[in-house]
Amino acid sequence: MENFEIHIMGCGSALPTTRHCASAQIIRIGNKQFMVDCGEGTQIQLRRNHIHFSFINHIFISHLHGDHCFGLIGLISTFGLLGRTAPLHIYADAKLEELMKPQIEFFCKGMHYPVFFHNIDATKHQIIYEDNTITVESLPLKHRMPCCGFLFREKPKRRHLIGDAVNFYNIPAYMRQAIKDGIDYTTPEGEVVPNSKLTKDADPSRSYAYCSDTAPCDNSEILKGVDLLYHEATFADSEKERAAQTFHSTARQAAQVACDAGVKRLLIGHYSSRYETPDVLLKEACELFPETIAAKEGMVIHID
Amino acid sequence: MENFEIHIMGCGSALPTTRHCASAQIIRIGNKQFMVDCGEGTQIQLRRNHIHFSFINHIFISHLHGDHCFGLIGLISTFGLLGRTAPLHIYADAKLEELMKPQIEFFCKGMHYPVFFHNIDATKHQIIYEDNTITVESLPLKHRMPCCGFLFREKPKRRHLIGDAVNFYNIPAYMRQAIKDGIDYTTPEGEVVPNSKLTKDADPSRSYAYCSDTAPCDNSEILKGVDLLYHEATFADSEKERAAQTFHSTARQAAQVACDAGVKRLLIGHYSSRYETPDVLLKEACELFPETIAAKEGMVIHID
Repeated sequence: MENFEIHIMGCGSALPTTRHCASAQIIRIGNKQFMVDCGEGTQIQLRRNHIHFSFINHIFISHLHGDHCFGLIGLISTFGLLGRTAPLHIYADAKLEELMKPQIEFFCKGMHYPVFFHNIDATKHQIIYEDNTITVESLPLKHRMPCCGFLFREKPKRRHLIGDAVNFYNIPAYMRQAIKDGIDYTTPEGEVVPNSKLTKDADPSRSYAYCSDTAPCDNSEILKGVDLLYHEATFADSEKERAAQTFHSTARQAAQVACDAGVKRLLIGHYSSRYETPDVLLKEACELFPETIAAKEGMVIHID
Repeated sequence: MENFEIHIMGCGSALPTTRHCASAQIIRIGNKQFMVDCGEGTQIQLRRNHIHFSFINHIFISHLHGDHCFGLIGLISTFGLLGRTAPLHIYADAKLEELMKPQIEFFCKGMHYPVFFHNIDATKHQIIYEDNTITVESLPLKHRMPCCGFLFREKPKRRHLIGDAVNFYNIPAYMRQAIKDGIDYTTPEGEVVPNSKLTKDADPSRSYAYCSDTAPCDNSEILKGVDLLYHEATFADSEKERAAQTFHSTARQAAQVACDAGVKRLLIGHYSSRYETPDVLLKEACELFPETIAAKEGMVIHID
């Protein structure tokens, strides 16, 4: 099975600390790399974590607070200095294009690749990216400005051929892809062999959801059963009011979202700078949802 | 004597590495703090080096390449989040104001302090900042775009009173400042006591020059005798042609500038990402100008 990995580049919140970097993640699925959010300093984090710059072709920006997008111009500029020619696609609120175009024109003059902006309507749940194996959906979130999460899903995969059965029925090579897709096989003698005799279940289609920044909001239908949910947990329970005022979540609220949606694992992050360590946040989330991991810069989470 | 210190926040060049940060320095003179250049990640470097954000009121930007200014928006935004009320003054090419105004309006909405842009004409050597004890002059440099260095000078200081003489002539308190400024003292009996009998030489007025990015250029009249010269040394001798093409300097050329101007000490930086360590650059500069220091993140250089 191909790798499906989440690489944490930054999991701090708005105020800079030496403990955490601003929000950014790399989602690596097979040989594809997607970036989600790009706070200041993300390009250094990519270097530090040995992420290949040239494999990043799609960047998804949840919302236009600085700690989620101030690293973009540096990254775009560095791509240019490195001689990139492949187009770069950025998915974000329309305002980002307006803000970045003049900067790109000035700072990246003469670079040899185009940057395409794809405007997201953060109020809608819809597919915003699709290729032969992956879809990315926008997830409406509740923040102080238009903000959406992202749900990465593998498309349904082909079934596995059962080697012995393929040999027994002497199935010709040109038929095999269709059989993996689920059709039955008719022998030259006219016997119909049901697909279930020829194939085993496909590998499961894995999924990862990224929800930051947001007050708790009900996306449980959409998030149902995802393999890994990243949900912001800016505050501990003791700061519940502050969380509500600023449209952020407590760790316990993140855990409640994970419970409600029946996700397999929860990854928390976007820690307020007031916490020296995420221990209290992890503890409070685990009380409700034990399968919780606290994000940390450089961490790689595998989805199997 | 008050402190006069240069704090190196970043001394790398355009391409990000894990060894160096993008250009930024703090010049601390007494209780004043000036910033020169502000590459991406500078606010993290300030945190890492325990620099107080609230004492930074004046930022000088040498030129508009990203590695010298991409950290500004993050810093301005963080100042806002921290509740700053004191005005911030930014000295830079006029284009910066045009590029940053829309970003500040959008990302820093509702912040309680004003940002004033002071446009610099990089082709002119002139005083661009002045207060009761300091002047900052622009230094025309030779780069691929308008670019200037900065020369920080203490103003001439008052002479020191000689305690014994002051007591002997019973000089009244209200006269003392004027005597420190150099006037003679006339006793009630009409005797003129020359200033040289009453005072000792003032502390020397110290100076620091920042020259990055630039091909070697002749500012030796202006730089004559400065206490410390920061001069970019992007390349080693072996990359002399590349240096010329890109309007940068080799370490040896930086040393030649230091020799020509008769500065006291040379500080090199802005190292190309191709050098794992600045050793070769330091060696080549020292051959010509032994009083050379290689800048390093976190380094503090005192000017006595």
